[in-house]
Amino acid sequence: MGFFSKDIQTLDDLFVHTLRDIYYAEQQIVRNLPDMISSATDAALKNGFEIHLAETNNQIDRLQKVFQMHGVEVSGVDCPAIDGILEEAREVAGEVADKSVLDAALIAAAQAVEHYEITRYGTLIAWAKMLGRSDCASVLQENLDEEKATDSKLNTMALSKLNQKAA
Amino acid sequence: MGFFSKDIQTLDDLFVHTLRDIYYAEQQIVRNLPDMISSATDAALKNGFEIHLAETNNQIDRLQKVFQMHGVEVSGVDCPAIDGILEEAREVAGEVADKSVLDAALIAAAQAVEHYEITRYGTLIAWAKMLGRSDCASVLQENLDEEKATDSKLNTMALSKLNQKAA
Repeated sequence: MGFFSKDIQTLDDLFVHTLRDIYYAEQQIVRNLPDMISSATDAALKNGFEIHLAETNNQIDRLQKVFQMHGVEVSGVDCPAIDGILEEAREVAGEVADKSVLDAALIAAAQAVEHYEITRYGTLIAWAKMLGRSDCASVLQENLDEEKATDSKLNTMALSKLNQKAA
Repeated sequence: MGFFSKDIQTLDDLFVHTLRDIYYAEQQIVRNLPDMISSATDAALKNGFEIHLAETNNQIDRLQKVFQMHGVEVSGVDCPAIDGILEEAREVAGEVADKSVLDAALIAAAQAVEHYEITRYGTLIAWAKMLGRSDCASVLQENLDEEKATDSKLNTMALSKLNQKAA
């Protein structure tokens, strides 16, 4: 987050700030997914990450639309949370020797990313509605629905196959 | 995470590593909650954070029990994810001037913390079962249930009252 002090005065300021936080986060995810795709061994997992990379690019487009609808500049602010989550994902990926165990670790890392996005979009949607911006809330809801579906797909992959291969 | 290279060979290693990650995370949460309690204005939110501080101390005790059940040393490893989430929470709290907007920001920050814990406990429970440690899974499930209940309570507080006060 890039503010110096007490720059958030209203719920509208907080909404815009958090929109910029998730905008930065989605861009960092786009930068990190290619490494996760190349690290994944299981074909379905690799494919799942590829599909999510395309989805994430669409989500960035939707966020740009929300900035425009709300009449504010399209820009990101530093988000230490996603930086930390992705740093941890890279670290753990670098520490795992066995390919099947690495797939299990990658799924866990990706689910941590999804949960961060789910909580942020949930909050943004609630605030948008409170601010009378149900138009913005509807667009943000599309991103939230995709993140929830991705988390659910990752969960199914882990429980149905990948954890077993790793064990 | 504190490993140098390729120290995670098996799913059991990954389970223990992630247990140490959430153990560190819970300890950081205990260190940060008092500031959130003193920053919160709304009495119900303040009280909610106080209850969660007591719960988090119990969760740390349960994690120590899981380490012992699994026959490994009770210890934490650095967790850049929770460090980033908490850094962001502190930053945003420092940037908000209005008390009601600050309460809305604190709820959002606390929900980001809860979602991190929910995803990690979900993963740990799945791995514990896969490793034949349903005894460890049961104890971890108690922590997961509490985190989900806390997230749900925070959500209700935000939607029923605090977002409206902030708007």
